[in-house]
Amino acid sequence: MSLIVQKYGGTSVASVAHIESVADKVARFRARGHDIVVVVSAMAGETNRLAALAHEVMAQPTPREMDVLLAAGEQVTIALLCMALERRGHGARSFTGGQIRILTDDSHTRARIREVDCSRVRDQLGQGNVVVVAGFQGVTEQGSITTLGRGGSDTTAVALAAALAADECQIYTDVKGVYTTDPRIVDGARLLHHVTFEEMLELASLGAKVLQIRAVEFAGKYKVPLRVLSTFEEGPGTLITLEEQEMEKPTIAGVAFERNEAKLTVKGVPDQPGIAYKVIGPVSEQGIEVDVIVQNAAADGSNDISFTVKRDDAERSLRILEQVAPSLPAQSVHLDTKIAKVSLVGVGMRSHAGIASRMFQALARENINIQIITTSEIKISVVIEEKYMELAVRSLHGAFDLQNHENGQ
Amino acid sequence: MSLIVQKYGGTSVASVAHIESVADKVARFRARGHDIVVVVSAMAGETNRLAALAHEVMAQPTPREMDVLLAAGEQVTIALLCMALERRGHGARSFTGGQIRILTDDSHTRARIREVDCSRVRDQLGQGNVVVVAGFQGVTEQGSITTLGRGGSDTTAVALAAALAADECQIYTDVKGVYTTDPRIVDGARLLHHVTFEEMLELASLGAKVLQIRAVEFAGKYKVPLRVLSTFEEGPGTLITLEEQEMEKPTIAGVAFERNEAKLTVKGVPDQPGIAYKVIGPVSEQGIEVDVIVQNAAADGSNDISFTVKRDDAERSLRILEQVAPSLPAQSVHLDTKIAKVSLVGVGMRSHAGIASRMFQALARENINIQIITTSEIKISVVIEEKYMELAVRSLHGAFDLQNHENGQ
Repeated sequence: MSLIVQKYGGTSVASVAHIESVADKVARFRARGHDIVVVVSAMAGETNRLAALAHEVMAQPTPREMDVLLAAGEQVTIALLCMALERRGHGARSFTGGQIRILTDDSHTRARIREVDCSRVRDQLGQGNVVVVAGFQGVTEQGSITTLGRGGSDTTAVALAAALAADECQIYTDVKGVYTTDPRIVDGARLLHHVTFEEMLELASLGAKVLQIRAVEFAGKYKVPLRVLSTFEEGPGTLITLEEQEMEKPTIAGVAFERNEAKLTVKGVPDQPGIAYKVIGPVSEQGIEVDVIVQNAAADGSNDISFTVKRDDAERSLRILEQVAPSLPAQSVHLDTKIAKVSLVGVGMRSHAGIASRMFQALARENINIQIITTSEIKISVVIEEKYMELAVRSLHGAFDLQNHENGQ
Repeated sequence: MSLIVQKYGGTSVASVAHIESVADKVARFRARGHDIVVVVSAMAGETNRLAALAHEVMAQPTPREMDVLLAAGEQVTIALLCMALERRGHGARSFTGGQIRILTDDSHTRARIREVDCSRVRDQLGQGNVVVVAGFQGVTEQGSITTLGRGGSDTTAVALAAALAADECQIYTDVKGVYTTDPRIVDGARLLHHVTFEEMLELASLGAKVLQIRAVEFAGKYKVPLRVLSTFEEGPGTLITLEEQEMEKPTIAGVAFERNEAKLTVKGVPDQPGIAYKVIGPVSEQGIEVDVIVQNAAADGSNDISFTVKRDDAERSLRILEQVAPSLPAQSVHLDTKIAKVSLVGVGMRSHAGIASRMFQALARENINIQIITTSEIKISVVIEEKYMELAVRSLHGAFDLQNHENGQ
């Protein structure tokens, strides 16, 4: 008998019929003797409906009251799911974030969890009840309702699993798990049965958006075994665990990509200490997130600095660079919005030489020119022309034989 | 500067536009320097929408979870109203029943208030904020969400006013206040500027359904000055206070009526101690509410007992009486569903003789036959044939000159 925390998002509880299916699923786990804590989001569309009401009242709704408003959404779902479980003969008790006491800081609309009190949950589990918890919400020390921001329900589930030392935290979504790459681009994309937290972070942040990064970080930190699986189809999904637990790891977990970036290049700046800061600093200070950064000293003592930003921030970044260019001084400033980033991710890379050269060879074979290369311990990213993105993803997926790898997976 | 508790029901907060009007009204009171606590219901239709979802899930929803579900309704309204107040430059803080800590017993869906903690409300008022409280809901000692049943928001408002020793509790509705009788029946029906709690109880229970009886009882018990007034039209409404505060009271406050009753008569029972109990007992034991009861001993030592019940309970009551009739023994049992009850209400009756005879005279003038008469200290009720009800109400309203009385009002 295990203790399992399950999380069902808004599309999984979109209607009473959906909630009934979730109840069936939970009931099956109960029938196998597991203790179950369920975390649910608001019914799909409900959060948007409530937010629209708020925006009718004021353009910038008071954050404190926005949280009170939105928290009502999950409160509806927990009650309905408990009723559905009770009708199936399973005792069930609902709790709001405040009732559990999921204690957060007071950053309304994007609060951080500080502490989770599990006593009421343990009590109810001990009495043989399923515990149903409202995701996405917490309460401050002073008793004000808070919400955790985007993807907050994933975080609620992981935090509860950590506090309860649950055997597994299952995140139910509308995909079957984490793939070696996007199945819409590569037919042979394969479901990964295991990935490490680090790989998941790289895969998530680079486009395979299945889980909120914050929840993965949290799970990694507290060593909560996390499983991503489909609400609508049976299957084992993808288990995300610490590397140490793996018997054998394949070299590469998957190929991630990001097409929503733009590249800025500042040419001919002096090769001096602090020059990178003088270029990047003014952009960051305007709240623009800078991703890949490379600097290349030329033999003539001058320097080119390139970096990528979100495509929406590209024009603004360009204007900032044009303003600072004379003071650097820089020869010229360039913007290229037609780029994409493709990355190989895998903790196995650490101990395997030659991955980078195999990657570059595969791209060269397709005549794809590499504009920027950056590497980390478990990831190699290249920036290329956008129109080659799909081709690059497919060729890398093939070159590393990801459709067939089953070693340790 | 006064401390005022205001309550706005579902039709007063039916849409964002309605909530904006309520905010305007509250803002005007704030501008005059009053401290304001606002109690709101769920937006009209919302409670029904949520209850319908629950009934999709199960025919008899779990009471505990029904309360969690329904309580989400008011939570939406408090947040939106606070935003509307903030946009008008007035600081505002929302509280759910659980956050205030409106402590109730654990009778889910019809909980009773045990205690109201005012510390957070006083705190916020002290900081110059309007306090907006979710009506209809509370929390048990164990922290479970409860609801107070029908008209619960009125009760929340009165309980808060009592706990805060507010100067006035204002209940905003869709009528201008309490009238001498139903304006749909009598053109000259006049808005009462003052009534006593006792009169209000009699008027409310007899058909003038403006306020929940429970809230009036509560207000009377804790001596909270209660004012009923319209959300949509300006006006002083009706102030409901203790009799002692009145300078001078008119004899009659109003004419109430009830057409939803039926009369049962048991004829020819022996004139013995305990016979009334033997007749009424079996009916009450089946959960049927018995209203007017009269017993009349005849010269021949036999007895007739008549009583009224809700019309829906009439057939069931008749069957019960037919079963017990042989054991009484009774000569016969009769049911009459075509009756109505008309009542004169007024605390002034206590010290005025001759009211009853003036009443009977007025009815006699219209050839209306009286079937039953019952009297209490502040009320005289007659049961008559249903078809004469409107005529009786109009004739009594005229006979006591209620359209013109302004003495003390």
